[in-house]
Amino acid sequence: MSETTICRAFAPATVSNVACGFDVLGFAVNEPGDVVVARPRSRPGVELVEVTGDDGRLPRGAERNTAGVAVRALLDATGCDRGVSLSLHKGMPLSSGLGSSAASGVAAAHAANQLLGLGASQEVLLACAMAGERVACGSAHADNAAPSLYGGFVLIRAADPPDVVPLPVPEGLACAVVRPHIEVETRASRGLLGDTVPLKAAVTQWGNLGALIAGLFRGDLELIARSLEDVVAEPRRAGQVPGFAATQRAALDSGALGCSLSGSGPSIFALCASLAGAERAAEAMATALEGEGLASDRYVSGVGTEGVRLLPAEG
Amino acid sequence: MSETTICRAFAPATVSNVACGFDVLGFAVNEPGDVVVARPRSRPGVELVEVTGDDGRLPRGAERNTAGVAVRALLDATGCDRGVSLSLHKGMPLSSGLGSSAASGVAAAHAANQLLGLGASQEVLLACAMAGERVACGSAHADNAAPSLYGGFVLIRAADPPDVVPLPVPEGLACAVVRPHIEVETRASRGLLGDTVPLKAAVTQWGNLGALIAGLFRGDLELIARSLEDVVAEPRRAGQVPGFAATQRAALDSGALGCSLSGSGPSIFALCASLAGAERAAEAMATALEGEGLASDRYVSGVGTEGVRLLPAEG
Repeated sequence: MSETTICRAFAPATVSNVACGFDVLGFAVNEPGDVVVARPRSRPGVELVEVTGDDGRLPRGAERNTAGVAVRALLDATGCDRGVSLSLHKGMPLSSGLGSSAASGVAAAHAANQLLGLGASQEVLLACAMAGERVACGSAHADNAAPSLYGGFVLIRAADPPDVVPLPVPEGLACAVVRPHIEVETRASRGLLGDTVPLKAAVTQWGNLGALIAGLFRGDLELIARSLEDVVAEPRRAGQVPGFAATQRAALDSGALGCSLSGSGPSIFALCASLAGAERAAEAMATALEGEGLASDRYVSGVGTEGVRLLPAEG
Repeated sequence: MSETTICRAFAPATVSNVACGFDVLGFAVNEPGDVVVARPRSRPGVELVEVTGDDGRLPRGAERNTAGVAVRALLDATGCDRGVSLSLHKGMPLSSGLGSSAASGVAAAHAANQLLGLGASQEVLLACAMAGERVACGSAHADNAAPSLYGGFVLIRAADPPDVVPLPVPEGLACAVVRPHIEVETRASRGLLGDTVPLKAAVTQWGNLGALIAGLFRGDLELIARSLEDVVAEPRRAGQVPGFAATQRAALDSGALGCSLSGSGPSIFALCASLAGAERAAEAMATALEGEGLASDRYVSGVGTEGVRLLPAEG
């Protein structure tokens, strides 16, 4: 546990829910992601000295920003009375369904943990990032924070305390994400779900979830493709994204294994057998959204097996 | 495809639901099971000439008995106009939650398929057994028929048409079943479930189901143990079995990985890390039921990786 004078950590964006895994499944992409720089501070406590890439929209107070809250939780959990100064560089859009707040919290906790040589375990770092999520989203779910931390595909068996099950990622698996230029609030989007699920839909969902996990273990892309269906959240949320059905159809027609909302949307993801396939899917999805009069950003990336990591401390 | 003058098939009992896999998961035990003997018949069609082991309670007409219906479906599916004469020897109690009707249908379809050299695939045999299930239970679920046919642990991704995903079975896994001397009708038991599930319970269930499947692939018995929890069906059905809670507690205290209702009950199963552990669990469970004034039968068996199979044609 060495102390350095600066630690820069990168935490990747994540796709949660993954069609059939509402609140229990997520995966990390290789990019984009958030970068947090942690520096020692002369006084105890956490300060947030800089936020870039958010167009000035995130809270600047460390106690209201997910990065600051995560580091505060880390200091409390480890009984550390030293101080940390944070700079947060957002590499992805806010409220887009890509786990933006989770990535900030994960990057911040990891950077501070390394800076101060605290030696906190991944379980502790996850709890700290979830404390940040609670401030950002009103509830603490691990399905973005855990894959951003661990990388790859991750199952959240139970949320409180988190029981995280890392899953294998088939060789070559890639992801296309399009973000239409509209915003969806996670809180509002959760409200659309209601409190109950038809038993028949629940059975369909757990059949698909089980099969998706079996498909990941086997590297069986056809089984994965058959499983990527959401009969619980997508039917209630897709109406928030104009052109969702056409976009999904375009992704599947381009050869994608599956396509659904990323998290609570509005971003739409497609899982593909290769990077080239993900390029095709992104193109097809963006074109479909354009047809609905919606501009969008595109991200194409391998599905990372690496989670949060340190970057060279040049900045 | 050779024709023989007699074919005897054994199909094992099965535990469906398996705590967290309501309607989508099941596994086969090595014993008990049903035996069906198929012989050529001079006239076309199916006749059921003998049923033993049922205390005279099953329908004798081939068109109302699950074994006869399964074979009728097989002849129709393969366009066969020859005739089959069946003898059904029940090796397990009726309406006990051990997949009794599924085992009869699977054994009958397999025996007739072999007898007549029809070469029907496992998918076709499953559809035939499910036709039998429809007559016996009023609805066609594959979560008993599929594991009785394929052996091992089986996930039913989708029911119609069935999409069956065989799963690995960790070395040494064993099962204890106690059947209290009461009966539960599958139809009545389904009625207790209602039409909806709280969203929170559904999320818990698919987290557990996903983790159970990951645990089976990894051979991670601790993960399997954490996952064997039913927050959907068991809470609504356990009241049908006096002493269920005490019996479950006894199984877990004896070291079982998990314990829940077998199918819709009244049988109670415990999954264990070894045959010796399953013996201990069966003893503990039977003692607990006795404490509630209930006699019971016990079955202890490895979790089979073999499904339906031919027996020597001596009988």
